[in-house]
Amino acid sequence: MLTPGPVAVYPAVARAMSQPLLFDQSSEFGTFYEALTRKAAAAMRWHDPALLLHMEAAPGIEVAAASVIARDTVVLNLVSGVYGAGFSTWARRHAREVIELAVPFDQAIDPNAVRDALRARPEIGLVSAVHHETPGGTLNPLHAIGAEVHAHGALLMVDAVSSFAGMDVHPADIHADIFVASPGKCLGAAPGLTFMAVSPRAWAAIHANGDAPRGSVLSLADWEHAWRPDQPFPFTPSLAELFGLEAALDLYAQEGPENVWARHAATARACRAGAAALGLSLWAAVPEIVSPTATVLRVPPALNAAEIVRAMRERWGVQIADGRGATAGRVVRIGHMGPAAEPILAVAAIAALGDTLRRLGFGCDPGAGVAAALGG
Amino acid sequence: MLTPGPVAVYPAVARAMSQPLLFDQSSEFGTFYEALTRKAAAAMRWHDPALLLHMEAAPGIEVAAASVIARDTVVLNLVSGVYGAGFSTWARRHAREVIELAVPFDQAIDPNAVRDALRARPEIGLVSAVHHETPGGTLNPLHAIGAEVHAHGALLMVDAVSSFAGMDVHPADIHADIFVASPGKCLGAAPGLTFMAVSPRAWAAIHANGDAPRGSVLSLADWEHAWRPDQPFPFTPSLAELFGLEAALDLYAQEGPENVWARHAATARACRAGAAALGLSLWAAVPEIVSPTATVLRVPPALNAAEIVRAMRERWGVQIADGRGATAGRVVRIGHMGPAAEPILAVAAIAALGDTLRRLGFGCDPGAGVAAALGG
Amino acid sequence: MLTPGPVAVYPAVARAMSQPLLFDQSSEFGTFYEALTRKAAAAMRWHDPALLLHMEAAPGIEVAAASVIARDTVVLNLVSGVYGAGFSTWARRHAREVIELAVPFDQAIDPNAVRDALRARPEIGLVSAVHHETPGGTLNPLHAIGAEVHAHGALLMVDAVSSFAGMDVHPADIHADIFVASPGKCLGAAPGLTFMAVSPRAWAAIHANGDAPRGSVLSLADWEHAWRPDQPFPFTPSLAELFGLEAALDLYAQEGPENVWARHAATARACRAGAAALGLSLWAAVPEIVSPTATVLRVPPALNAAEIVRAMRERWGVQIADGRGATAGRVVRIGHMGPAAEPILAVAAIAALGDTLRRLGFGCDPGAGVAAALGG
Amino acid sequence: MLTPGPVAVYPAVARAMSQPLLFDQSSEFGTFYEALTRKAAAAMRWHDPALLLHMEAAPGIEVAAASVIARDTVVLNLVSGVYGAGFSTWARRHAREVIELAVPFDQAIDPNAVRDALRARPEIGLVSAVHHETPGGTLNPLHAIGAEVHAHGALLMVDAVSSFAGMDVHPADIHADIFVASPGKCLGAAPGLTFMAVSPRAWAAIHANGDAPRGSVLSLADWEHAWRPDQPFPFTPSLAELFGLEAALDLYAQEGPENVWARHAATARACRAGAAALGLSLWAAVPEIVSPTATVLRVPPALNAAEIVRAMRERWGVQIADGRGATAGRVVRIGHMGPAAEPILAVAAIAALGDTLRRLGFGCDPGAGVAAALGG
Repeated sequence: MLTPGPVAVYPAVARAMSQPLLFDQSSEFGTFYEALTRKAAAAMRWHDPALLLHMEAAPGIEVAAASVIARDTVVLNLVSGVYGAGFSTWARRHAREVIELAVPFDQAIDPNAVRDALRARPEIGLVSAVHHETPGGTLNPLHAIGAEVHAHGALLMVDAVSSFAGMDVHPADIHADIFVASPGKCLGAAPGLTFMAVSPRAWAAIHANGDAPRGSVLSLADWEHAWRPDQPFPFTPSLAELFGLEAALDLYAQEGPENVWARHAATARACRAGAAALGLSLWAAVPEIVSPTATVLRVPPALNAAEIVRAMRERWGVQIADGRGATAGRVVRIGHMGPAAEPILAVAAIAALGDTLRRLGFGCDPGAGVAAALGG
Repeated sequence: MLTPGPVAVYPAVARAMSQPLLFDQSSEFGTFYEALTRKAAAAMRWHDPALLLHMEAAPGIEVAAASVIARDTVVLNLVSGVYGAGFSTWARRHAREVIELAVPFDQAIDPNAVRDALRARPEIGLVSAVHHETPGGTLNPLHAIGAEVHAHGALLMVDAVSSFAGMDVHPADIHADIFVASPGKCLGAAPGLTFMAVSPRAWAAIHANGDAPRGSVLSLADWEHAWRPDQPFPFTPSLAELFGLEAALDLYAQEGPENVWARHAATARACRAGAAALGLSLWAAVPEIVSPTATVLRVPPALNAAEIVRAMRERWGVQIADGRGATAGRVVRIGHMGPAAEPILAVAAIAALGDTLRRLGFGCDPGAGVAAALGG
Repeated sequence: MLTPGPVAVYPAVARAMSQPLLFDQSSEFGTFYEALTRKAAAAMRWHDPALLLHMEAAPGIEVAAASVIARDTVVLNLVSGVYGAGFSTWARRHAREVIELAVPFDQAIDPNAVRDALRARPEIGLVSAVHHETPGGTLNPLHAIGAEVHAHGALLMVDAVSSFAGMDVHPADIHADIFVASPGKCLGAAPGLTFMAVSPRAWAAIHANGDAPRGSVLSLADWEHAWRPDQPFPFTPSLAELFGLEAALDLYAQEGPENVWARHAATARACRAGAAALGLSLWAAVPEIVSPTATVLRVPPALNAAEIVRAMRERWGVQIADGRGATAGRVVRIGHMGPAAEPILAVAAIAALGDTLRRLGFGCDPGAGVAAALGG
Repeated sequence: MLTPGPVAVYPAVARAMSQPLLFDQSSEFGTFYEALTRKAAAAMRWHDPALLLHMEAAPGIEVAAASVIARDTVVLNLVSGVYGAGFSTWARRHAREVIELAVPFDQAIDPNAVRDALRARPEIGLVSAVHHETPGGTLNPLHAIGAEVHAHGALLMVDAVSSFAGMDVHPADIHADIFVASPGKCLGAAPGLTFMAVSPRAWAAIHANGDAPRGSVLSLADWEHAWRPDQPFPFTPSLAELFGLEAALDLYAQEGPENVWARHAATARACRAGAAALGLSLWAAVPEIVSPTATVLRVPPALNAAEIVRAMRERWGVQIADGRGATAGRVVRIGHMGPAAEPILAVAAIAALGDTLRRLGFGCDPGAGVAAALGG
């Protein structure tokens, strides 16, 4: 199982999720929950407890949009892929105007273009960006973009769902005001929760937003103080998901974030080297923007992504993914997230992919692919 | 752990939730998911696949309200407790008008009053009702109410979260058009999902509702066809929750629904008999309306619910619950849901409660309480 | 499940047993295994790593006997119950002579009688004793007996299978040279292992015993150095059992041995008080010798133990045990071991037992039984 | 983890082992246990319930030897490897005489030599053979050998621990009278049990053997009728191990034995092809005798097995094994048992092994190795 989602969970996470332990809501659960929000914050290197939503990351991002975007907000949405484009739909429901700064989906946003856009429209109050567009395996340069947004004074909202914990990205470093992460990607836990860092400036904007939902599944504000042990919990939480997240955060800290990132990077590097030796091209237009958490490869002419995926699974039991949205049918995607971020798994994927392509008539040398993946 | 929520899960459910199995999204997962929606439908004795939402039941009800209530809908909301009252908040956001038919929270709605209300305002298009108000342990007579609503022609939306699978209640029998159930109560699974029966008339109303959210966490319609194996899934599902629900539905079918209900009823009967012998009164004004899935008892004068709960836990390790909303501090609540629906657990609860009350100065005879709970 | 065996395992133990982790045999496993033998030793308050056998305790005791008893050994076997009597069978296969010091099975061995026996036969080289005879729920006074044996200079071999970790008993305190314990009783783990403390004097006797098996399932000596990380392991160990034992030892240390013993003692006290109020007699002839880890009650005349056990299980789902060997049919046994050592479970057992006896025609007052079990 | 032992367990087995379910010993457990012995028998295609021992296979074989070999038995022990040689030690303790028919450990026993040996010594009453010598990855031709033994009239005892369930071998087909199998190899369960088929002739020999242990961990006869639900169980069984075996037998039946064998065979074939392309030689002297469940490769001159194993693990996280006994240091061993019997895992092993050898200075082409492993 080497897709960019669903991702296999670590065994220790699976065990934690079977934990039958229950809590007195008024005390032990509160203590546990606060500690969990602080662990999630520590992983994000953030000063305040993390905001935890009991939903998958995609709706989690909608909730953030509904809460922070007011009817007079002008949003600059950076679009370099499927998820960025999708965000415009949500933003338009709430914003006065959504300006799209878009590039072809095999490219990344240029920080200079962000600066120009901000200068052209000083009233822009929120910039939204996807860090890693998994359908294309491309990264946006958020350190530089964040600096521009910060200099301008707008809020920055970042979807770091499929990059956080697989590489060096944290909200403070990129001046993010809302930073959305998921347990279900590089942390190797189940995907049923979303956790966020939310800055004081973002909270102020939410509080000032008369249109922000309250008492609703669309409300961030309902959860602002949920970490406090003395707050009643809005509804029965799914302990399995919370225990799974806790186990994953513990593993992340024990292995050491830098080691986890290095493991993801080494896996992606092996995969890219092998793919190049097979004669395959990256989807990304330039190598500088490829992600260490997923490798997205263009399907050779005359071949079909779905057929490659199916044939590879049938013969070798290795599951990779077709594209999504604009990349559907045109690419195959190999995930390197959480427990899948092991170089030997990239080697096996290259072997199986090379063999599959060869059998489908594409002239390639699987042995050469593996030799390259194995490295110098 | 004998609260009406959180509820302990069955061991087989906990094991199922640690299942690491992953799926090819395009085929095996689709097959599994369709089978699961059909199992959930079978448990509800419903003709169509169940609608599954990846959220707890409270937000699940909000989503249903947001989808079915249009700006020209007149809603009759039946209020006999905390949850019924809370529904008005959600309904008012979307409806032209919300009419409340309310009774004191220790009573049940009178079907005749529903008929009168419908006659008085023929334009009522949706009636909403909570079957079991867990804060009071009271049931509304939904068979009779459903017949009235059906005769009138309005849609009926029912919150059966804490009664379904603990007693004989199914959507077709009560003419429900939207019937909301949870894995996390009497089914003994985790609470992170909601499943619903939605009638063709309700779907027609949702489709006709121009205000119904689309592409949103607030949208039911996004999930209407999610059960179809050929549909792409909107986001990564939490397999642990789905596997847990499947295991719970299998257990329910294996034990036999009638046996499960009888187990819940016998447990509640033992609990009520024991409580009466301890000299405690039910919160419910009349015995006809008490629930078989939770027993709610008035706290004797001069005693404090929180202190009872705490003392009972400290000395005996038995966790019961304080009230909620209007009943907070005034009642203690003993849940009989899922694995907690065992008569011996009601006996133990009565023993521990009687002992705790006696130690706190309330003149009662725990031995007599237990003798009554043990029955003839 | 309230029997003195099989005993339910703690949930954390069950989770640990599903651990898929595997080891490099040459290093990580060795480190883990040594740590485990030291944890087991710490629980026994023993100076050397514990000896771990990969078998249940009953064969574990046979192995110890086969190893330490030589053809010229005279054994004094103390017999106060079924297990003590059974030991003679094993001892006779290897010993020059087995002297039995026996008392009726509802009594305990008198330390003075041990002293007399040792004086009468100075050549006695090994004394064997069962600490807790679970078929009768009786304890032998091993502190005093151990002092006598120590003064005499013989080796002392103790079966502490069903008492260790449920009360204050450790090998050094009772001068035991071979002290046999089990994960499957008061530690609340699975029963597939045996662990022992073996004194240097006992090892010397085993080494000197030319008849001691070597390279055999009957050999203790094969395992003497198995804890050393640099030793190859004799065969593939069952990691599930080892992980379960580790989890149980961790729980024992976390809760605190004194707290665990107090929990066992309080449960047994409640059970005995309730049984007395039901009009039932202990099997033990005198109260000084009753165990805190199991309560054994004489069946009233005209009733049948098997029928009581069956009826109680059918009506209340509470499983207790019939007698075993000499007590079969004559007693019912309620275990208080590991997770079953909770006073509320004794209360529930008394309620269910009283109700069952009453329905079978025995004149007793279950309410009075429970009132007594609840205490002052 | 690709060693020939310990072997990873299937996830469904791990889950089954965390099952907390307990039984009434007198009825439900008996029913479960009989069904389990019949499932194990069905897997062996045997007519009677399997004999289950609660110990690992190595001691299980000792127990069988101690039970069936009488003081007047002449044993012909076939020795083609470490395990066969080890059996002589056990056999000599009990037999009148042990005749060894030995070949170099890279060869297999010749059925004609067995015939000659039997003719030379007509009084031979028991022939013992190891089917798969895992230290060398070599198979003995048991169909032909069994036919010779059968014609002669002696009993045949077979160690099929590491071949059964990974290839087509069953006791009736090879005329085995005692056929020893393990859950912990190709079945992919935990190794703490042994199961056997025992023929009526073997039982007759055991019953007639006055030296056969009784009431002992060394006794097979104690377990002869343990499958009968009306028999008391000798001691508390480890349910985790039994549940794990049941899950593994269910998986084996569901996948289909022929499919499981084909999966093992394909994995071994890929591994051998890859190894040959790397320039490595099989330990086995001739290709006809190599096993489908483990591949044993000679270490190139100037290299060291332990160093290869260590380096491969450090760089690639792939665990293979050094030799054992006579093959220690001279070979590396790659297991293909249970969940490790997947061709892609052989491909990955060849890639990692080739890369490791190359880095250690052995001139080989890992790409060519993988290309060969991928096949035509």
